Amino acid sequence: MATTVGVIGGGQLARMMIPPAVELGVTIKVLEETPGMSAELAATGVGDYRDLETVVAFAKTVDVITFDHEHVPQHVLRALVDAGVPVHPGPDALLYAQDKLLMRQKITELGLPSPDWAAIENADELGAFLDAHGGRAVVKTARGGYDGKGVRIVDDRNGADDWFTALAEDGRGGALIVEELVDFVRELAQQVARRPSGQIVAYPVVETVQKGGICAEVIAPAPNAGSAIAQAARDIAVRVAEGVGVTGMLAVELFETRDGRVLVNELAMRPHNSGHWTIDGAVTSQFEQHLRAVLDLPLGETRPREAWTVMINILGGPAGASLQSRYAEAFAAHPAAKLHGYGKESRPGRKVGHVTVAGSELDSVLADARAAAALFD
Amino acid sequence: MATTVGVIGGGQLARMMIPPAVELGVTIKVLEETPGMSAELAATGVGDYRDLETVVAFAKTVDVITFDHEHVPQHVLRALVDAGVPVHPGPDALLYAQDKLLMRQKITELGLPSPDWAAIENADELGAFLDAHGGRAVVKTARGGYDGKGVRIVDDRNGADDWFTALAEDGRGGALIVEELVDFVRELAQQVARRPSGQIVAYPVVETVQKGGICAEVIAPAPNAGSAIAQAARDIAVRVAEGVGVTGMLAVELFETRDGRVLVNELAMRPHNSGHWTIDGAVTSQFEQHLRAVLDLPLGETRPREAWTVMINILGGPAGASLQSRYAEAFAAHPAAKLHGYGKESRPGRKVGHVTVAGSELDSVLADARAAAALFD
Repeated sequence: MATTVGVIGGGQLARMMIPPAVELGVTIKVLEETPGMSAELAATGVGDYRDLETVVAFAKTVDVITFDHEHVPQHVLRALVDAGVPVHPGPDALLYAQDKLLMRQKITELGLPSPDWAAIENADELGAFLDAHGGRAVVKTARGGYDGKGVRIVDDRNGADDWFTALAEDGRGGALIVEELVDFVRELAQQVARRPSGQIVAYPVVETVQKGGICAEVIAPAPNAGSAIAQAARDIAVRVAEGVGVTGMLAVELFETRDGRVLVNELAMRPHNSGHWTIDGAVTSQFEQHLRAVLDLPLGETRPREAWTVMINILGGPAGASLQSRYAEAFAAHPAAKLHGYGKESRPGRKVGHVTVAGSELDSVLADARAAAALFD
Repeated sequence: MATTVGVIGGGQLARMMIPPAVELGVTIKVLEETPGMSAELAATGVGDYRDLETVVAFAKTVDVITFDHEHVPQHVLRALVDAGVPVHPGPDALLYAQDKLLMRQKITELGLPSPDWAAIENADELGAFLDAHGGRAVVKTARGGYDGKGVRIVDDRNGADDWFTALAEDGRGGALIVEELVDFVRELAQQVARRPSGQIVAYPVVETVQKGGICAEVIAPAPNAGSAIAQAARDIAVRVAEGVGVTGMLAVELFETRDGRVLVNELAMRPHNSGHWTIDGAVTSQFEQHLRAVLDLPLGETRPREAWTVMINILGGPAGASLQSRYAEAFAAHPAAKLHGYGKESRPGRKVGHVTVAGSELDSVLADARAAAALFD
């Protein structure tokens, strides 16, 4: 079997692949963007993931390529594939995580439920969509958005003019996406892993709470998710994984509507914030699962180890201080809390770590996790 | 707080400290004996742990020193302490893990239960002990033994003559230890962690099965260990930890006798094979706990995540093949098994990895773990 996994990108997702790589006894090498990033310990190269030469040179040192993020350009990915490098997920799949317009088209083509949506190229088209949807809608750029960037709520036909202008100036043209503002009860996320040879396993659907477009809190499994909701979420993720040929981890972010439907919101083809709970809470963490999948090894059990697991992001971290400056206080008060630090400097709104607590009673697990995470504000 | 832990020794115990160091966001640096050892990923130095200059130079790059093994000589340890380096466990404690004769004296002095034992300096003394204990006994060298080395069952007064000769030739003289052959029901192990500032936490007592003097299988918690046995094991370990001033993890290997007593067999002042189950099975693994303890951080919860956890060592590994050559088969048949590979070459009897399975029914957990581990023979 292939035993050296190369990860493009040195962020916390690459970092969190290091522990399971050490445990499995497989070698992990990271191409980080700049020296001293989150995944520094496993970094064997520094360079720009958009530069073909840099990426090809890195790929020669590993057996399979995977990713910390979805930003590696298609021409670089395709050159790797043409050179015979196993790339997971491959460019044909990653396309749908890189371009939200293509994603919406594909989801619709697969017969899966989306919010009402349209590709729009000007203010008139936006205006028409607004008129048909109560005067408010979500506008997204097709590319370059994440953690709430490139997403905007609009109630004016001219509310996306700056983006239209930027698209026109870009020369490549293209469209924005407009989507109905879903009146959702809550947000869910469904993760599955898929091997190149086709095996798929699904994690329990989880509830996610977003703050300012960034994942803040995850409850696993999603409370009060009846079998119909859980089954619908799972079916959607499996059909997406198979429909676009995802290899590795896939996260499907979903809206649960008041009338009990689930609609596809976003896709991520890598370990995802909504799955960090699995590190401490599931038999096989999403990071180990991703490594297994990209190495085309049989996938691990996804069962939660305890009844409830809650994960809370540390956003920003303590002002002017390190995460570590709070360890003594936090560990003393919360011995069951699992603290994960990403080795990143604190900065307002930045994901610098997370806290996980698992146990048998949701109320106490949630209270413990929230109180522990609050010590890192 | 101190945030860089230096580990002397590059074996699998150092390796297994890497994942929790990454998770906690603390830096780990390893001084390995030769290049390419098990903990290679975190190695920042290569050298002989018996060489003062090498160790002092390494210590200058870290905030606190701890160990993969107990073999660093006392004069090196004391020089570090004299130089102001925090060393955990410190030389005064480590002495009792390095010298079994001092350990037996100390355990007896603390009023804790040992098998009958004596320090012996010649065949006459051995003969007298054998006569008083049914003609058979265990002889041990005070120093240098581990995994069954330096331990011998003897039924002849001349059965340790070679060791007496070696001690005499060594010039430093000294004694061997002879111990009664305990007619035990089973072996247990009790782990505790202790911080420099005194906090102690205890793990559940576990049952260990030895094969050829090497730990082969661990069941956590020990089945049918009534509260009296569990309490006795815990009390002994706490009293040892306090009595010798251990910092970090302490494992006390115990015999459970037919009449329901527990006797101290061996001590280890570091993460221990009997605690590998905690990586997948406890809220806080022994490796994270060891890091917390040596950094003098509040200790984590020791509660098992599931009712039963079984750990089985992979001894030797597949003849002429890598562990990885069996992953596909093992993972397909045992999706709940957690495989830990140590990055070491297979060699008969060598610990090259372990398998852990956790769940609610001991019989099925045990069967799953054994069957998974058997695929790596």
